[in-house]
Amino acid sequence: MIRVTIIGSGNVAQHLIQAFSKTAAVELVQVFSRQPKAVSDLVPAAKIISDFSKLQTVDAIIIAVTDNAIAEVSNQIPLEHQLVAHTSGSVAMEGLSAKNRRGVFYPLQTFSKSKAVDFKVIPICLETEEATDFKMLETLAESISNVSYKVNSEQRKALHVAAVFVSNFVNHLYQMGQDICTENKLDFEILKPLIQETAHKILTLSPKEAQTGPAKRQDTETINAHLSFLTDEHQKEIYKLLTKSIIDNGKKL
Amino acid sequence: MIRVTIIGSGNVAQHLIQAFSKTAAVELVQVFSRQPKAVSDLVPAAKIISDFSKLQTVDAIIIAVTDNAIAEVSNQIPLEHQLVAHTSGSVAMEGLSAKNRRGVFYPLQTFSKSKAVDFKVIPICLETEEATDFKMLETLAESISNVSYKVNSEQRKALHVAAVFVSNFVNHLYQMGQDICTENKLDFEILKPLIQETAHKILTLSPKEAQTGPAKRQDTETINAHLSFLTDEHQKEIYKLLTKSIIDNGKKL
Repeated sequence: MIRVTIIGSGNVAQHLIQAFSKTAAVELVQVFSRQPKAVSDLVPAAKIISDFSKLQTVDAIIIAVTDNAIAEVSNQIPLEHQLVAHTSGSVAMEGLSAKNRRGVFYPLQTFSKSKAVDFKVIPICLETEEATDFKMLETLAESISNVSYKVNSEQRKALHVAAVFVSNFVNHLYQMGQDICTENKLDFEILKPLIQETAHKILTLSPKEAQTGPAKRQDTETINAHLSFLTDEHQKEIYKLLTKSIIDNGKKL
Repeated sequence: MIRVTIIGSGNVAQHLIQAFSKTAAVELVQVFSRQPKAVSDLVPAAKIISDFSKLQTVDAIIIAVTDNAIAEVSNQIPLEHQLVAHTSGSVAMEGLSAKNRRGVFYPLQTFSKSKAVDFKVIPICLETEEATDFKMLETLAESISNVSYKVNSEQRKALHVAAVFVSNFVNHLYQMGQDICTENKLDFEILKPLIQETAHKILTLSPKEAQTGPAKRQDTETINAHLSFLTDEHQKEIYKLLTKSIIDNGKKL
């Protein structure tokens, strides 16, 4: 049984607490939170602490807090040579205090508090200073997920940027689609099967093979009709830039 | 049994031929194609024609050709008062020749030749000049799909623009994600669960509720780190514009 403590009570922390609580391979020893209420539904009160001095030595402490707070939180841990990993996509492993054995346990997923996730399919990106610690984090990752990857800090930074493109920006485009529907008294439901199929397609085709639409076909007439249809300057600017990018991309082939 | 003829042999035509061939409610009478080979695997040779003069009167002729060719093809049909519908998202119903009863039969989906689709979940957007023809197209739509909508030409234009945002542009962002992975020796597989979950989320949350990431949090430090990480000017420009759009959008609330 792997003994784990989590520091934090935000989205990622909550989802990890739930995942670890479900697996017999892990004993969730403590949860550190400055807002004990945020996790009181998930963890017995006796395990919730808000005083760093109460932190016990465990197999791994997982820091799941906002990027800016990682360094400070890791400095406050009153332990030494303890394996401490953060869950951030964008902070280097060296962002953690050097007094402990450092690692990264980065679940690559978009977490919303109000939506349950299936941890089994979430890739967990791992990095450690020491090889034995890697084994430990790998076993921990495999206790909740089917997929883990060894990813160094530089690669993780790339992955985080890529994730912004394929998730945050994509979701924003969904919103623009919804806005256009609303403006034209159309039910956003009409677009949902298309959205699902677009995501589903890249499981069997590369994005390059899957690309369709007026920009791909260099169909200037439709592109111009769309641009004169759009009245919102934001939407217009994004339409122009992404269309240009798809056309330029086609030329590169 | 609804007697239907399809004109065209591209992506949409092929998927419609397959869907109509599977349902007992429809008799596929003829397929007009200038490239008979393109459909020879899908339709008995005797039903394939490439001479407009051979077109028979049926319940509905579906023109599934590129937008630019719709007007000309509809002019070439040597029939009158025949129900003729096109499948385009961006061409007005009036783009069809007025000598026939006009309609639109627009399946809102992204079709790739090499990927099968489940027509049952594809919304079909319908429009006709005459009410009785609407019933006919509606019955035809319901023979292959669970969802059909009444959508006028102006709304259909909006829908097509919205579809470009949530499908064509989204797929292009997938490709940028893949490019970033490749440049950093990362397996694009790592991103696929995130892509699926991002699409899945909006089935239960609105895009606004589902939005996460550094732009949403106005996390300038991470945004700047990402911008200095990106070296490709295209990627940088798109990152900047979409980040700005997410931030501005947050301010609107």
